[in-house]
Amino acid sequence: MARRDRMRLGAFLYPGGHHVAAWRHPSSDADAGINAAHYRQLARTAEAAKFDLIFLADGVSIRGDDLDALSRTAIRYVGQFEPLTLLSHLSAVTERIGLVATASTTYNEPFHVARKFASLDHLSGGRAGWNLVTSADPREAWNFSRESHLAHANRYARAEEFVDVVRGLWDSYEDDAFVRDREGGRFFDPDKLHLLAHEGAHFSVRGPLNVPRPPQGHPVVVQAGSSEAGKALAARTAEVIFTAQQTLEDAVAFYADVKGRMAAHGRDPDHLKIMPGAFPVVGQSEAEAQDKFAALQALIHPVVGRSLLEQLTGADLSAYPDDAAVPELPETNGGKSRQDLFLRLARREGLTIRELYLRAASARGHWTIVGTPAQVADALQERFEARGADGFNIMPPTLPGGLDDFVALVLPELRRRGLFRDAYEGSTLRENLGLPRPPHRIPSAARGSPERGAA
Amino acid sequence: MARRDRMRLGAFLYPGGHHVAAWRHPSSDADAGINAAHYRQLARTAEAAKFDLIFLADGVSIRGDDLDALSRTAIRYVGQFEPLTLLSHLSAVTERIGLVATASTTYNEPFHVARKFASLDHLSGGRAGWNLVTSADPREAWNFSRESHLAHANRYARAEEFVDVVRGLWDSYEDDAFVRDREGGRFFDPDKLHLLAHEGAHFSVRGPLNVPRPPQGHPVVVQAGSSEAGKALAARTAEVIFTAQQTLEDAVAFYADVKGRMAAHGRDPDHLKIMPGAFPVVGQSEAEAQDKFAALQALIHPVVGRSLLEQLTGADLSAYPDDAAVPELPETNGGKSRQDLFLRLARREGLTIRELYLRAASARGHWTIVGTPAQVADALQERFEARGADGFNIMPPTLPGGLDDFVALVLPELRRRGLFRDAYEGSTLRENLGLPRPPHRIPSAARGSPERGAA
Repeated sequence: MARRDRMRLGAFLYPGGHHVAAWRHPSSDADAGINAAHYRQLARTAEAAKFDLIFLADGVSIRGDDLDALSRTAIRYVGQFEPLTLLSHLSAVTERIGLVATASTTYNEPFHVARKFASLDHLSGGRAGWNLVTSADPREAWNFSRESHLAHANRYARAEEFVDVVRGLWDSYEDDAFVRDREGGRFFDPDKLHLLAHEGAHFSVRGPLNVPRPPQGHPVVVQAGSSEAGKALAARTAEVIFTAQQTLEDAVAFYADVKGRMAAHGRDPDHLKIMPGAFPVVGQSEAEAQDKFAALQALIHPVVGRSLLEQLTGADLSAYPDDAAVPELPETNGGKSRQDLFLRLARREGLTIRELYLRAASARGHWTIVGTPAQVADALQERFEARGADGFNIMPPTLPGGLDDFVALVLPELRRRGLFRDAYEGSTLRENLGLPRPPHRIPSAARGSPERGAA
Repeated sequence: MARRDRMRLGAFLYPGGHHVAAWRHPSSDADAGINAAHYRQLARTAEAAKFDLIFLADGVSIRGDDLDALSRTAIRYVGQFEPLTLLSHLSAVTERIGLVATASTTYNEPFHVARKFASLDHLSGGRAGWNLVTSADPREAWNFSRESHLAHANRYARAEEFVDVVRGLWDSYEDDAFVRDREGGRFFDPDKLHLLAHEGAHFSVRGPLNVPRPPQGHPVVVQAGSSEAGKALAARTAEVIFTAQQTLEDAVAFYADVKGRMAAHGRDPDHLKIMPGAFPVVGQSEAEAQDKFAALQALIHPVVGRSLLEQLTGADLSAYPDDAAVPELPETNGGKSRQDLFLRLARREGLTIRELYLRAASARGHWTIVGTPAQVADALQERFEARGADGFNIMPPTLPGGLDDFVALVLPELRRRGLFRDAYEGSTLRENLGLPRPPHRIPSAARGSPERGAA
């Protein structure tokens, strides 16, 4: 079991880095999005440093309509690897690190998602995780023969059912179903095959999944939404939450809120690891760190900053000049949690449009820490010890440079303080995160009874 | 360009081998379906031997309702890796061999298929191929919230539109769209992004695909259907055909038929490589080969043989005893080409049910060659030179044993005859197969005109 005195750390790999202008900076690979050697190097670096996992985001459309702004960015899903193919590739060059990919419940089929993550779990010897998201961009709907995207409530109703179907499919076989008895001519024990026979509002899925039960039982289920519906889903089903909080206060409130909801589902709060994003800009001195950050900020084109702010908030800001105060934003059908986050940030600090877009564009709403290794470690330690986080999803500003910096400068400091591991505890992602292996959905006492499914 | 005097060869990897009882034989890995090391070894063996490609089949359900029969086989999609995750994994441990995976047009979205194969093409440096199939098993429909599967004609109409959408999406960007101009702050040239804006009977897909144009322009499009609708689709769109013919006569007729249809689409017959399946059982002597085959046949359980025959023909044969002559089979909604093949085979040779199921089960209707290295090479050479094939998709009876045999015994014989390469000619699958790189769908003269799509 994981010790609460050690942080969990994810390496969130974003093509050339998380800063919106990273691709223009010499410490990033400009062609990172389709450079397999770049990702292999990052994965090996993160594994050598004993990160719990690498994390990949996803989007099934470009994000935006403003071609001028889009063509000046590398990170709005304009052109890069698809995450499951990339992680499967990386599973062949790593041995211990977890592999978490995002896949939307809105424009996928649960059978495909269950199957691909089960396959990745087998390929990697139990290192797969699925970051379950809903899709909020209308451009995604237009790529899948739909006229408009689902309303927020419907997206979450579909997601709730989707995750249940996926988990049910992962239990199509019992762990020891495949006996492979050459002499007796029995490849699997038919009593250990269970049909799902799911019939719900959104899906009708018979099963079985045609992959043996994953090494982890179930790949780790990660979730990224922070809206009310997102928190409800997470409390019931998530094992890791990737979230965005700017302040310690918000982080502690979110942590207590979500963990507090778990008892109602009969869940142990330790079985959910909350890992907010953290965007660290590290320098040997504070001045060096500030200079690094300023150099990146200077590379943000105004067209890119405004466009990204509009995408993140779902609001049309074209009527407001750069130096106007951020207006009250109307409610949209987009991702609610990000919109709230930026509104609160702008109100709290009285920001103008320009100030907000520079803040938003740099780390897209994630917690930005600019400082020395000790300052970055202090900030992470404070939030960890205050129970605002069980760990962090580290979002390097540039890649590979920003990951190399974090590994070389911050990790030794965290280790000196006993806050991060020196060696992997286990061989699966679950073991390293300190998450229990899920029992099969059919209690062993009920197996072999007439209720069991038969193909 | 490829020389017509050299064969193309695929290594069709099926978990523990293509023989239905392979998993029971000591020269196969019984746990092959979820053994990543097994597949890495096979991929490296095939690449060292200079095979053009490795080929993976797929099914999105288990294949059958008879649990007793299913639980005695390893090859009816009861439990194994999903092909695209597996090929992405193998792309990290190989450098030159082509990587072809099957994906159905019936229960997938063209955006997902276009994206994953484009991603694999980038991951592998231009080695991806997509084997386009339609799904004929009702159990597949039941995994995707549908009550019944599409009728044969509708499946092909959907497939025709599907492949056009996928190809259109691969051309979302021009080859040189990503300029990555750090100084000027322009990541891609917006004039080189083209929306698809497809509106058809089955799909409405706006695009663009959020992956740069693949290194091969388009991954190689492979097709496996041999029905009338399948041949029509292949003549218009396929670049490789994987097919099943038992006799030289059938193979020559199929080859002439499909290549003859290409002129109507303005296509050069050389731009389609016909690669029938071949199931070689090789021994140093003819007696050793026959003994090897007999040992495998003896491992076929009668329940498995009958069940597989029923699955392949789509017919209910339970009313006929094993020693009855094969009856006239009623037309079904299943795969037509296999049904025809087995009916013809049974009539030609006057087979009983038992004789047919032993024949069908061994290689599932593919051409079985049992003999010495010279005899196997003779058979392949005859069919190649008679223009019954441009090459073969080799289906080893057991894996890894059967592939090792073919590489050690047959390939040297083919090389002595000048029929197979000593070294790869190119670095992409297209280059090795001798297929042209597709130009972008928008002629260069029309680019930059008002018709071009704009996001």
